[in-house]
Amino acid sequence: MHLPDSFYLGTLDRVVERIGAAGYDGILVTQPADVAYLVGFCYAVTERPVYLWVGADRDRFVLVPELDRQYAEQQRTHAPVVTYFEYPGVTSPEEHFADLLRHRGLAAGRVAYTSSMSVSTFGKLGAALPDVTWEVSDVVAGLRLTKAPEEIELHRQAADICDSMLAAGRAYIEEALSAGRELPREGEIARHVVGHGSDLIYQRYDHVVFTTKLAGGLVYAGPNAANPHGLPSSRRVQVGDTLILSLGASVLSRFVESERTFVIGEPSADQRRYFETARSAQHVGTEAMRVGRTCADVNAECLDVIRDAGMGEYLRHRQGHGIGVQQHEAPWVEDGDPTPLAAGMVLSSEPGVYVPGHGGYRISDTVLVTDGGPERLTTYPRTIEENVIAA
Amino acid sequence: MHLPDSFYLGTLDRVVERIGAAGYDGILVTQPADVAYLVGFCYAVTERPVYLWVGADRDRFVLVPELDRQYAEQQRTHAPVVTYFEYPGVTSPEEHFADLLRHRGLAAGRVAYTSSMSVSTFGKLGAALPDVTWEVSDVVAGLRLTKAPEEIELHRQAADICDSMLAAGRAYIEEALSAGRELPREGEIARHVVGHGSDLIYQRYDHVVFTTKLAGGLVYAGPNAANPHGLPSSRRVQVGDTLILSLGASVLSRFVESERTFVIGEPSADQRRYFETARSAQHVGTEAMRVGRTCADVNAECLDVIRDAGMGEYLRHRQGHGIGVQQHEAPWVEDGDPTPLAAGMVLSSEPGVYVPGHGGYRISDTVLVTDGGPERLTTYPRTIEENVIAA
Repeated sequence: MHLPDSFYLGTLDRVVERIGAAGYDGILVTQPADVAYLVGFCYAVTERPVYLWVGADRDRFVLVPELDRQYAEQQRTHAPVVTYFEYPGVTSPEEHFADLLRHRGLAAGRVAYTSSMSVSTFGKLGAALPDVTWEVSDVVAGLRLTKAPEEIELHRQAADICDSMLAAGRAYIEEALSAGRELPREGEIARHVVGHGSDLIYQRYDHVVFTTKLAGGLVYAGPNAANPHGLPSSRRVQVGDTLILSLGASVLSRFVESERTFVIGEPSADQRRYFETARSAQHVGTEAMRVGRTCADVNAECLDVIRDAGMGEYLRHRQGHGIGVQQHEAPWVEDGDPTPLAAGMVLSSEPGVYVPGHGGYRISDTVLVTDGGPERLTTYPRTIEENVIAA
Repeated sequence: MHLPDSFYLGTLDRVVERIGAAGYDGILVTQPADVAYLVGFCYAVTERPVYLWVGADRDRFVLVPELDRQYAEQQRTHAPVVTYFEYPGVTSPEEHFADLLRHRGLAAGRVAYTSSMSVSTFGKLGAALPDVTWEVSDVVAGLRLTKAPEEIELHRQAADICDSMLAAGRAYIEEALSAGRELPREGEIARHVVGHGSDLIYQRYDHVVFTTKLAGGLVYAGPNAANPHGLPSSRRVQVGDTLILSLGASVLSRFVESERTFVIGEPSADQRRYFETARSAQHVGTEAMRVGRTCADVNAECLDVIRDAGMGEYLRHRQGHGIGVQQHEAPWVEDGDPTPLAAGMVLSSEPGVYVPGHGGYRISDTVLVTDGGPERLTTYPRTIEENVIAA
């Protein structure tokens, strides 16, 4: 599970060029996803900070806790690995970092950093390096907005796994139905599909790594599905339920989401109406994901389908969001984000209809924006006919 | 899955008393674990912020994204729920929060906040409320250092689940051995034990909720176990391996860790030596967890056992850390933390010995500090005799 060296070297070139042009001596990167993106080190996030330095002179290092030294080296991290022993430390990680900068003659340098840093960390760094001029920079976030071809290939592989997880979830329920067994609980379905996805990943890849998770799933049926972000419950699914399988998977921490709504048994008129509205909005919104249109504009066109069907009161969220090294990242397919879409962006398209006391309807694809139009990386069938689980 | 109202009311009393005494008009709480602790709302953490306000006049509200409204209400969140529609929003969540404060006459108030807030969020709040005086406060972190009796009961329940996960992992390997099957892969063992723990939780509780996870497991054997924070690999465990099961579970987001080292087959002299050293350090370090001693002092006594055995080069980390609503939280059982232990603290005790190319040895208990001495909440057997898996 590695990207070719050329990916990291190309990214480094772009970072160095931009921080140099902005007059910085270098950039301090502290967000785990940014570190994974820039140098390919994926690690368990704890209170122990990881500090990646990229100098305008191409000098770089990644400061990690001692317990991650060997792990970072095994991952062929594209920066020399230096360590501090532990957190909080008699000498703090921030003081270690300050020493490393002082040794480079940058005690009074101009240092860029990313705004995801906590106020606490910023305070400690400022105290350790009182003469540095600190400036927030979105250089790395800007690069991450569009994906390189090598990354898109990982998203494609993750999409294949995620679609397979949907099929496994459906089959799990169908097997119970055909065997005349009790239907599974939401939590059991979640465990089954996440296990299926994890197994596939371990079968397909050596040296599995991830930032936040390999595979995940929210499963909710009946009234529970009216909470877009609820958790699977111990309720058994039952005939008559609307069921959302909201699944995710990652390959080298390149995420996809694939979500489908199923109906167990013959759909009622209400179920058909809500399903078709959600599906139509998703189709319109996905087709609108074209180079040059803004996130806000695409979102409005998508959600208008639901509002125009008289279901505006059942909206609970935007159309979607960017997906990359993080499951949710910029740009945001929402009214407040004026970012124009560009080729290479990977976005979720997942409008939903949530009817309190009844259920929820959401179909999500992970969509690649190309010069030729939107390409759905997730391809599991979307129609109600294909997503009725016969009971 | 609820704590009694009295827990939240008592905590509110203490927060209000302390922020009032410090002269604040109120405190803005943004960390998910702090929100879960103060008002009992556990939610999926995304880019959408949740802002909990607790006024010195006991007035409070929790500002959540619209998609979490119903979910927050179902959890009997101990604060009125108000919403913003989405992130980033045409009107940002921070502007919504500012409006709520202005309506309370606090546009020029003195507001405490926790230092886990990001620089980015702090910048947006500062812009939305330019006349507020902002001050970092550790009021909530201070309260969280010691656990209430109701919370300790949840930790005990989680410990029972975590110990059962250890037994399930061991049995999984023993079954393969006795059936003459191939032994499972590290990733498969992880999936099995996490599934076992999750199933137990769903069986035992209604309305399962969590902040970061229900149950988790790192499983590593042979050379892979020399990385304290590596991930389970696709390598099959084998006779002769040292195997670490590093497991965690939570009940209402009160965590425990329970970790044991097993040897598959008859231990070699080296395996015995490393195991006994790690076990002895863990015993000494746990017994040292007594009221009034400092974290630094306890840690030194614990790790000295390993250094005195001539294995200092195999140390990779401190003795342990606090456990509560977060799996890792203050205090830190490490040289750099002078915090004196107090009754009601819950700590991990988990020194380890890591031999590159050979394997790792770590035994971890979750320990409650009491006036009568340390109480191990996790109780799975710890001796090498009990943790040899006969092959």
